[in-house]
Amino acid sequence: MSIKWTGSGPELLLRVDRNRPEPLREQLEGALRESIRAGRLAAGERLPSSRALARDLGVSRGLVTECYAQLQAEGYLVTRGGSATRVAAAARPPVDAQSPPAALAGPTAPVGIDFRPGVPDLSSFPRERWSRALRRACRDVPSDLLGYGDPYGDPMLRDVLAAYLRRVRGAAADAAHTVVCAGYAQGLQLVLRALAGEGVRVVAVENPGDPDHRVAAATAGLDIVAVPVDEHGVDTGALAATGARAVLLTPAHQSPTGVVLAPGRRQALIAWAVARDATIVEDDYDAEFRYDREPVGALQGLAPDRVVLLGSVSKSLAPALRLGWILCPPRLSAGVARQKRLADRGSPVLDQFALADLVRSGHYDRHLRHMRTRYAVRRAALVDALGRYAPEVEVRGLAAGFHAVAQLPPGTDERAVVEAARRRSVALYGISGYLLDPPERRASPARLVLGFGNLTPDAISDGIAAVADLLRGG
Amino acid sequence: MSIKWTGSGPELLLRVDRNRPEPLREQLEGALRESIRAGRLAAGERLPSSRALARDLGVSRGLVTECYAQLQAEGYLVTRGGSATRVAAAARPPVDAQSPPAALAGPTAPVGIDFRPGVPDLSSFPRERWSRALRRACRDVPSDLLGYGDPYGDPMLRDVLAAYLRRVRGAAADAAHTVVCAGYAQGLQLVLRALAGEGVRVVAVENPGDPDHRVAAATAGLDIVAVPVDEHGVDTGALAATGARAVLLTPAHQSPTGVVLAPGRRQALIAWAVARDATIVEDDYDAEFRYDREPVGALQGLAPDRVVLLGSVSKSLAPALRLGWILCPPRLSAGVARQKRLADRGSPVLDQFALADLVRSGHYDRHLRHMRTRYAVRRAALVDALGRYAPEVEVRGLAAGFHAVAQLPPGTDERAVVEAARRRSVALYGISGYLLDPPERRASPARLVLGFGNLTPDAISDGIAAVADLLRGG
Repeated sequence: MSIKWTGSGPELLLRVDRNRPEPLREQLEGALRESIRAGRLAAGERLPSSRALARDLGVSRGLVTECYAQLQAEGYLVTRGGSATRVAAAARPPVDAQSPPAALAGPTAPVGIDFRPGVPDLSSFPRERWSRALRRACRDVPSDLLGYGDPYGDPMLRDVLAAYLRRVRGAAADAAHTVVCAGYAQGLQLVLRALAGEGVRVVAVENPGDPDHRVAAATAGLDIVAVPVDEHGVDTGALAATGARAVLLTPAHQSPTGVVLAPGRRQALIAWAVARDATIVEDDYDAEFRYDREPVGALQGLAPDRVVLLGSVSKSLAPALRLGWILCPPRLSAGVARQKRLADRGSPVLDQFALADLVRSGHYDRHLRHMRTRYAVRRAALVDALGRYAPEVEVRGLAAGFHAVAQLPPGTDERAVVEAARRRSVALYGISGYLLDPPERRASPARLVLGFGNLTPDAISDGIAAVADLLRGG
Repeated sequence: MSIKWTGSGPELLLRVDRNRPEPLREQLEGALRESIRAGRLAAGERLPSSRALARDLGVSRGLVTECYAQLQAEGYLVTRGGSATRVAAAARPPVDAQSPPAALAGPTAPVGIDFRPGVPDLSSFPRERWSRALRRACRDVPSDLLGYGDPYGDPMLRDVLAAYLRRVRGAAADAAHTVVCAGYAQGLQLVLRALAGEGVRVVAVENPGDPDHRVAAATAGLDIVAVPVDEHGVDTGALAATGARAVLLTPAHQSPTGVVLAPGRRQALIAWAVARDATIVEDDYDAEFRYDREPVGALQGLAPDRVVLLGSVSKSLAPALRLGWILCPPRLSAGVARQKRLADRGSPVLDQFALADLVRSGHYDRHLRHMRTRYAVRRAALVDALGRYAPEVEVRGLAAGFHAVAQLPPGTDERAVVEAARRRSVALYGISGYLLDPPERRASPARLVLGFGNLTPDAISDGIAAVADLLRGG
């Protein structure tokens, strides 16, 4: 049943249909709201009497009265005394209601083979195991843990993580000073804010390094100062010269150069932190995947009162889980937990239960061992493909993780290589995106950061073959 | 096998045991790390030769050599040229390694019956349904969505939420301007930061209101100004007088007074926002649970370009899920999504899939209907118990949600009532905890905010009976 109804404005079509699943009242309310919002019913316009509208639509008068009362309660309609119901003045259409939705992302060329660094093998996510762990979590979680939880995180998971990090990362982990977070990006925000609360104003970062660090620091109210990375890791002399009292590092596998922090540098860093009363924020990036030896223990284990250790399951399981941890120096843990409470009142409890289950049962270890083998094969495929198709290219940073740095022949134009490869549907990433120096001061040779974690050996080989002439500087 | 070994420091006990599940090398490494960290092996101290230690422990020399190399790579040990291996200078024990862990919470008396507001019935969480939805999510999620996702949230969930909010909340919801977040607290942070980015400096808040709002605003770099709430909701005249260009409201069921925002106030608010180019942040608190009529549609539907709608599953499913949504005015959505990206790079994908499944299948609606009935029974139990045991108490704010405000007889000392009740294991919450005025300016009568969502009818009745003499002003 529908009516065409001409008020002072444009013709209005109201439709209700007994064959649709929604109740008639809901249909009529929706139609009126929509008409008011879209401006088809203008502010001040008088509505038909409930009796007239009910008759025209073939519905009960009570239904129309309820409808009008509802929309009046919501502020769409006004009824003053015994006079007619009118469209409220406030219910004007939004200015840009008709504009198309904002583009959510810029246009991008289609990518066939994507060497994006930092993405693990997404197809290896242990769906069945995780699903089972979640099922157990849903079954076993006590009801009183389904409310607003401990901002530090679930105590059981913190115990399990602390034990795991002591065993596998050589960390001096104490569950009381472990805070569960939503992955690395959040962990970093919480720590930077807690440091800002302690009076820190400047944080030193690695250069080249993660380009997001500048905006992450700014959001926490901090400035950054860039410290160069050489083949032994961050330059500790240059760090000391900055006067900064906090530094953000990726010791296990520097992002992006792939360098492992050298033993002497580790000691120099700790000595610096102790002498300056400074804090080292250790991003335990790629720590789980080391090929030539056992993973090097975390810096945190050397000086737990000076080092914050940030870790996550983004590389070990999947980024989409958004779960991580922060081992805090005792003085900092309350501040970090306070920031976590402000940020989101604590991480989801069922996911925390599932992770505790996975680690405790040994599946997490087994999965890591399995992935280490898998990444070793992909790493070999990259070395092999580069050796075969582009032997001029020097590869570095392969001791750990799942990205490497390819140094292109002298004189190669990094940006031109990236753009030409993109036209062949191969996504490459130049190191210049990681350089914090102003472009005019850069004299860095052309280098590519090649992520191979989420590519099959065949895709790696095909991808390198497809752009080999570009890599050779051709 | 173990050795007692006396260096220049205290006697050292190193133990390895072939019957333990960990490999011998891991045991020895762990024991050495622990001894260095605890100061039992002091900086500079010389370690036994690998040959001697291997002999004493009954392990291969290679194992000890590997162990030393690992700890050297980690910075615990130093080996210079051909000389002996020593404990590194940097590896000093943390200053407060021996101090007990910080207390995580202050001492609290045991609580038998807790009238804490804002907690839903945790025992009604649909474990089985949610578990099934998660299982389907684990099975169905495409691998490429397991990486770093869209900071706006999963597009499918945003479509489902927008349709749901249009249908159930009368919202003018557009998936393109919907951002998924980790519950209300995070949503508010993201919005306040985005508003600060637009030049907003002061946000008006309801008084009484959530005491967390002051610190939430401060974290986003904003000041707050308190606006009184009367029996029709927030005082719009007082709001206009503040000069603020943003206001944070709970129109559906004011927290804590329980007032529903009156139609005239709704229109005055929209008129104010349009005239001042201001933003209304609508916390859709308790909106799902209305007892005397259908839920009143969201203010957002009246003016989607002026109102941000914040909602979550904390009241409808469980706070522990940490899932919510933000309907943004089009101009604000990119800024909110940018803040979400900085905060945690997007919410967990599997949880988003599960929520989309629950809403799409109709289980979410059915659960809400079921809970509305359940809360109506608890609400009746509260009214009944107060009527029976403390008829002097006036109850307000019962039109929606699962908390009410009990006004105590004149002259009652609110704090004394709360403290005396606590000694009887009944947790009550006075309105004074929600007042933003300085204490010396408060002339508010004694009121209690009684949450009944997470209490059985019997517990409600028993709780009120146990403190009835206190409520009667006795």
